[in-house]
Amino acid sequence: MTVKSRTGLEEYLQSRKKMVDEALERYLPREQSFPEVIFQAVRYSTLAGGKRIRPILCIAAAEAVGGNAEEVLPFACALELVHTYSLIHDDLPAMDNDDFRRGRPTSHKVFGEGMAILAGDALLTEAFYLMTKKERGERFKAEARLEVIHEIAKAAGFFGMIGGQVVDLQSQGKTVDHDTLYYIHTHKTGAMILASVRAGAILGGADTLCRDCLNEYGKNIGLAFQITDDILDIVGDKDLMGKTTGADENMHKVTYPSTMGIDKAKQQGITLVKDAIAALAPLDQRADPLRKIALYVIERQL
Amino acid sequence: MTVKSRTGLEEYLQSRKKMVDEALERYLPREQSFPEVIFQAVRYSTLAGGKRIRPILCIAAAEAVGGNAEEVLPFACALELVHTYSLIHDDLPAMDNDDFRRGRPTSHKVFGEGMAILAGDALLTEAFYLMTKKERGERFKAEARLEVIHEIAKAAGFFGMIGGQVVDLQSQGKTVDHDTLYYIHTHKTGAMILASVRAGAILGGADTLCRDCLNEYGKNIGLAFQITDDILDIVGDKDLMGKTTGADENMHKVTYPSTMGIDKAKQQGITLVKDAIAALAPLDQRADPLRKIALYVIERQL
Repeated sequence: MTVKSRTGLEEYLQSRKKMVDEALERYLPREQSFPEVIFQAVRYSTLAGGKRIRPILCIAAAEAVGGNAEEVLPFACALELVHTYSLIHDDLPAMDNDDFRRGRPTSHKVFGEGMAILAGDALLTEAFYLMTKKERGERFKAEARLEVIHEIAKAAGFFGMIGGQVVDLQSQGKTVDHDTLYYIHTHKTGAMILASVRAGAILGGADTLCRDCLNEYGKNIGLAFQITDDILDIVGDKDLMGKTTGADENMHKVTYPSTMGIDKAKQQGITLVKDAIAALAPLDQRADPLRKIALYVIERQL
Repeated sequence: MTVKSRTGLEEYLQSRKKMVDEALERYLPREQSFPEVIFQAVRYSTLAGGKRIRPILCIAAAEAVGGNAEEVLPFACALELVHTYSLIHDDLPAMDNDDFRRGRPTSHKVFGEGMAILAGDALLTEAFYLMTKKERGERFKAEARLEVIHEIAKAAGFFGMIGGQVVDLQSQGKTVDHDTLYYIHTHKTGAMILASVRAGAILGGADTLCRDCLNEYGKNIGLAFQITDDILDIVGDKDLMGKTTGADENMHKVTYPSTMGIDKAKQQGITLVKDAIAALAPLDQRADPLRKIALYVIERQL
């Protein structure tokens, strides 16, 4: 099966994003809860209008093997909470020291550094709270829920996102080689994208073959996504990205375009997307949203 | 049943602490793993020789209702990882700004602020990774494991430890009333102590009556523990505490002794310990370690 067009994708993304946004709004405690400031802080960052790529990938992977979008929501939203925590901590002065994110001042600029650290901690904790809440996941077998939680904890941990973040932090202001950059991208961003797809596969009840296909898709799409982000950060503009363009360059960060040139980086992104789509060959048309998302990832840069 | 002596407690604490220390050593990745610095940082803080009160309470609660200490270890150690993460973040310049902990320089003094934030993040994540690892908890039903993870996430989250930390941070340099102080203590420390006991009760297979007894014990012991800590922080010395004595006073923090005087605070601690022991009345001699730990908590201050 070949997918040449993104027809219908906008509609799919919109509808799934709406489900995720509404669920996040429902799951997060009200701003009136005590102590108010922490709920203001987590809602400020979480409901700031991200693209919800991770939860949508989780939902789309589940649907690709016959799962139900609504039922997957607690886990899909947990992925977004983990992502949001990582952004808040990543933006801190001791880390990337970013003042803007998604077009708004970052958490520590609004709530102070101490509260931003706690907001990140709270979101990470809440992700696991949400996934283990009895009424949220009773549709699934307890064993499957444990497996999904384990996948997410692994991807967010030492040998996943944290590892990537550590190497990224150590590389600031240094010239790093391509292998190091590859490590950072596949760990800092790639691991959680892959986990989103794998979580959806498990919850959707994928058999071994489908799991392998989705795993291959997730790996390719994760790296493609980060390469595209690198490119956008150079050719994009502030309005499109909602953060200061060229920030990575200013920090002397090494990116795919800076190690191999923009054209070669674009080419690599296209190859990864093709591989991602090819990996889905054994899956039927229920995997079309995943195929189209792959195209979307690469076309964002145009 | 009345327990008048702590006879045999040292031995119990030593043996269970040894099990916990050895398990933590086993569970945490080697320092040679890549990227090395994060493993150095988490091992530096986790293996720095804490008293392991939370894991021991978890084990003792499980044993009190017929559970097995070895089998409970992954969950007991997860509680210690969550505790250690909270200490690392609590010590940060944007929070309590402490230079010493357990007699050694704090994480951010050794590894830098960014790495200390990541070390805390990693430990919190690793706690959930550990509890969901298949081979670690296969003795227990998946439903029980999910319930324990949920208890711990809840106690560490918005309406538990994070909430207490938020109010504590907001109260720095201010005079707070007794209710606020009570909130901070029961949330910042009490919630995780209670969760340790509750986790042990679930894993040990406690029936509803025993769960209720252990819950009551956990609530009382949690507050007693924090009041004693407050007292020790004033009357203790640097060698005993391993951190700068009087630090809370220097920060103009309100403590139980500062709102009600040392003698009344001591009296309150004794009452809570008596209530904790009384709550265990329906349990047999397998709950003796819990009874003795209660006495230990209050006698630490002598």
